[in-house]
Amino acid sequence: MNIKLVLKLVGRVLLIEAAALTLPLAVALMYRESPAPFLLSIAIVALCGFGLSALPAGKQFFTREGFVTVGLIWIFTGLVGALPFIFSGWFATPIDAIFESCSGFTTTGSTILTDIEALPKGILFWRSFTHWMGGMGVLVLATAIVPKLGIRSHYLTQAETPGPVFSKLVPKQSQTSKILYSIYCALTLLEIACLKLAGMPLYDSFIHAFSSAGTGGFSNRNASVGAYGSVAIEMIITVFILLFSLNFAVYFLLLTKKWREVLASDELRFFLLVVGTSTAVITAVNLTVYSGVGESFRYAVFQVASIISTTGFGTADFVLWPQFSQLIIVLLMFCGACAGSTGGGMKCSRVLLLLRAIRREVHRITHPRSVEVVKLDGKLVSEATLHSLLVFLGAYVTVIFGAALIISLDGFSFSVSFSAALTCVSNVGPGLEIIGPVGNFAAFSGLSKLVMSLCMIVGRLEIFPILVLLSPSTWRRT
Amino acid sequence: MNIKLVLKLVGRVLLIEAAALTLPLAVALMYRESPAPFLLSIAIVALCGFGLSALPAGKQFFTREGFVTVGLIWIFTGLVGALPFIFSGWFATPIDAIFESCSGFTTTGSTILTDIEALPKGILFWRSFTHWMGGMGVLVLATAIVPKLGIRSHYLTQAETPGPVFSKLVPKQSQTSKILYSIYCALTLLEIACLKLAGMPLYDSFIHAFSSAGTGGFSNRNASVGAYGSVAIEMIITVFILLFSLNFAVYFLLLTKKWREVLASDELRFFLLVVGTSTAVITAVNLTVYSGVGESFRYAVFQVASIISTTGFGTADFVLWPQFSQLIIVLLMFCGACAGSTGGGMKCSRVLLLLRAIRREVHRITHPRSVEVVKLDGKLVSEATLHSLLVFLGAYVTVIFGAALIISLDGFSFSVSFSAALTCVSNVGPGLEIIGPVGNFAAFSGLSKLVMSLCMIVGRLEIFPILVLLSPSTWRRT
Repeated sequence: MNIKLVLKLVGRVLLIEAAALTLPLAVALMYRESPAPFLLSIAIVALCGFGLSALPAGKQFFTREGFVTVGLIWIFTGLVGALPFIFSGWFATPIDAIFESCSGFTTTGSTILTDIEALPKGILFWRSFTHWMGGMGVLVLATAIVPKLGIRSHYLTQAETPGPVFSKLVPKQSQTSKILYSIYCALTLLEIACLKLAGMPLYDSFIHAFSSAGTGGFSNRNASVGAYGSVAIEMIITVFILLFSLNFAVYFLLLTKKWREVLASDELRFFLLVVGTSTAVITAVNLTVYSGVGESFRYAVFQVASIISTTGFGTADFVLWPQFSQLIIVLLMFCGACAGSTGGGMKCSRVLLLLRAIRREVHRITHPRSVEVVKLDGKLVSEATLHSLLVFLGAYVTVIFGAALIISLDGFSFSVSFSAALTCVSNVGPGLEIIGPVGNFAAFSGLSKLVMSLCMIVGRLEIFPILVLLSPSTWRRT
Repeated sequence: MNIKLVLKLVGRVLLIEAAALTLPLAVALMYRESPAPFLLSIAIVALCGFGLSALPAGKQFFTREGFVTVGLIWIFTGLVGALPFIFSGWFATPIDAIFESCSGFTTTGSTILTDIEALPKGILFWRSFTHWMGGMGVLVLATAIVPKLGIRSHYLTQAETPGPVFSKLVPKQSQTSKILYSIYCALTLLEIACLKLAGMPLYDSFIHAFSSAGTGGFSNRNASVGAYGSVAIEMIITVFILLFSLNFAVYFLLLTKKWREVLASDELRFFLLVVGTSTAVITAVNLTVYSGVGESFRYAVFQVASIISTTGFGTADFVLWPQFSQLIIVLLMFCGACAGSTGGGMKCSRVLLLLRAIRREVHRITHPRSVEVVKLDGKLVSEATLHSLLVFLGAYVTVIFGAALIISLDGFSFSVSFSAALTCVSNVGPGLEIIGPVGNFAAFSGLSKLVMSLCMIVGRLEIFPILVLLSPSTWRRT
C-alpha cells in the first residue's frame, strides 16, 4: 500500500475543497453575514491540504490504492464539509454537522435541522453546493481540473462513478471528466434560468438547481419545494431531476448525434417504464386522499421523480398516503436512478440485470441443454460482471439490514430503523413515519447519526471502496 | 412437457394424502367427534387420486417435469389439506382454510384462528400433522413408500429438499428417503416421550412434537408453548427444534460414526454461532423488560431457537421487546435454519456463502492477480453453484418485497406488510406488531391471504419450482 501517495492525493483534493469554500464565503459577504466560519474552514483545510500534498511519494498506484484513496477522500470530505457548519454555531453538536455534511456530499439530503429558514444564506448555499460537488464526484472534478495527478486516474474515477459498467466517453480520463462536468454545468445553469423564469427568487434557484443536479434534496425552505405552491416550478424540477437521473453518456451520445444508441438503452427504457408505471399507480391509489386526477397526478409524479432520482425534495407528505403508495416509494428507494448519473440506489441497470438473471435461471431449469447469456443493450454481459453485480446486491441488502440493526438501538419502530438505513444507503433523504418528507433526523442518537453518515458514504461509493478501506487484507504486506 | 405423467404423479401423492387423512379420522373417532369432515375429504381426495393416477402416460421425465410436478403437488396439497377445515365449519371462508392448510404443509405456522382451543381435537391433530408431513416433504415421503414411481425420482426430491447443495445419503433415492424418514420418525417419537415425561398431556405432546419436527409452530393452545409455564417443556422443545434445524445428513453421519465430518461442517458451526450470539445479545438487551438474567435468558433462547428454526412457537410476545431485539428476530427470519433440515428461510449455508463471496470480492480488488475460490466445508464451491445461490438470494428478496407490496393494499403499516411477507416466505409464522406471537392473520383480506399462501409454498420450495410452473417458457414446445 503506497499510503504516502494516497495521502498526497487526499491533500490535493483538500486544496480543491478549500477553493470551493470561497464560493459560500462570497455569498456570505454579499449578504453581509459573518465570513468567519468559512475563513476558519478555508485556513484549516488549506493547511492540511498543503501539508499532505507536499508529501514525497513513489509512483506505485493500482486498483487497491485507488479504492483506498477514494474511500479516504470521501471520509475527509465529509469532515471538511462539516467545518463551516460547526463554526457557524447553528448545529447542536459536531456529529450533527458531520451528518449534514455527509448527507450533502453524498447527495442524500437527509437533515437534522428543524428550522432551515433560520440559517444564514452562506451556510445554506454551502449546504446545497456540497450536493452539486458530490453529485458528479469530487474526484471526477479533481481529474477534470488537475489533469496530471501523476497516476492513472481511471483507478480513482472508476471507484467513484456509480454503475455496474464503467464507461469512459473518450479514451483519456481527464477529457471524460471535463466533458461530464461541462454537461453538468450546462444543465445546472439551464435549470437556474428556468426556475428564475418560473418566478423563484434567484438565490433559491441556485439552491434548488444545485440540489437537483446532485439529486440531493436540500432546500432552503422548511416546506421544501412545496413552499412555492407553483405547478410550473414543480414540473421544471421534475423534468430536471429526471434528466440528472440518466446516464450522462446519453447526453454525450446526443451531442455526437448517436440517437439510435440512446434509444437502444435498456436501462433508459426500464427507468422510464418504472417512472411511468409508478406514477400511474400512485395517482390512481391516491385518489382516496386527493380531490381529483389532476391534483393526485401532480403530487404523484413529483414524488416518484424525487424518490427514484434519490433527490428527496417534497411537495406532499407521502407518510400520509395509502400504505400501498408508501411501499412503492420504498421499492423506488431500492431501485434508484440510472448508472452513470448523479443519483443513488442500486441503479436501474442492476435491477434489470437481476431480473434477467432470474429469468435465465428459470430457463436453465426448463431447457438444461440450451446455453443462454444475459444481455444489456444487446451486448453480452460477462459472467464475471454478473457475479460482481449479484455480490453487490447481496452486500447492499446486508449493509442496509446491518445498519438498521444498530439504528434500532434508538428504539424507533422497525419502519423507521429500516427506512432510515435504506434512505441513507440509497442516498435518497426522507424515510417513513417520523423521518418522512416533513420530518427530520434530529431525534436519533449520536451513534445512529454516525452510522447513517457512514452509510451515506458507503452507498455513494457503492460499498466496496469502504469495505476495501476497512478490510485487514488491504493493509497486509503482500 | 409430459403433463400426463405429471398429473399421474400428482394423483399418486393424492392417494398417499387420502391415506394420511385416516389418522385424524381415527383421532376424531377416539374423541367421539364428528368423522364427517374427514370422511368427506378422504372420499374426494381418493377419487381425484385414483382418477389422475390411472392416466396413461409416457416415460419422458426430466428436470422440467420434476419442477412442475413438485410445484403442482404442493398447490394441490394445500387445497387437499384445506378440505377437512372447510367441512368442519370452523373456518369463516374457504380462503381461510386454504391459508391454514398451506401454513401447515409449508411448516409456516401462521394462523387465522383467534380461539384455537375451541376447535375439535381431530381438526387440530390434522392441523399439526400437516406440519409433520410437510417438514420432511410429501415427495420425500412418496419416494420412501412408493419406491417404483417409474421415474428417476431424484428430479422430484431435488426440487423439494431445501438447500444450495442437494446431497443424497446413499446412491438410491428411495433408500435415502427411507433413511431420512426413519431418523425423522425416531426423533419425533423421542420428543413425544420427553414432553410426556415433562408433564405435557399425551395429545398435546403429539401436537407439539409434530409441529417441532416440521419446524412449523401450530399449537393446540392459544398461548402456544407459553401456556404450560414449564421451563422443562420449553427446554425440551428448544433442544428439539434446534435438532430439527440441522441438516439431516448430520444424523446419518453420526449413525455411521463419521464424527469428524460432522464437526467439520461450516454450516453447523455458523448456525450455532448465530444461535449463541443472538441469544446472548437478546438476553442482555431484554434485561430492561425482565427481572433477571435467568428469566431473560429463558425467553431469549426459546424465541431465538423458535425463529431461526422457523418454527414460530411463542413463550413471550417479542413485539413488546426492545426494537433492537425485534430487529435481530427479523434478521433470524431471513437467515433460517440449515440446508437439508425441515426449517425454512434463506438457510445458513447460503448466508455464509454470501458473506464469503463478499469477502472474496473485496480481496479481488486488493489482490487482483491472486485467484481465490469460495469454499464450504473445505471443499470448493463451483462458480455455477455460487451463481445460482446469488440469483436465489436476489429472487428471495424480490419475492418478499413484491408480496409486501400486494399485502400493503390492506392498509397495515410497513412493518406489518413487510414482516408478513418475510415470515410467510421464510415459513416462520409470526411477524411484527399485530401479527406478533400473540396476534394472528385473521385481519387480512382474502387477496392478501391467497398471496401469503402462495408465498409460503414459494418459500418452502425455494422459489424456482413455482417460477418454473408460472413461466410461459416452460409450457412452450421445444
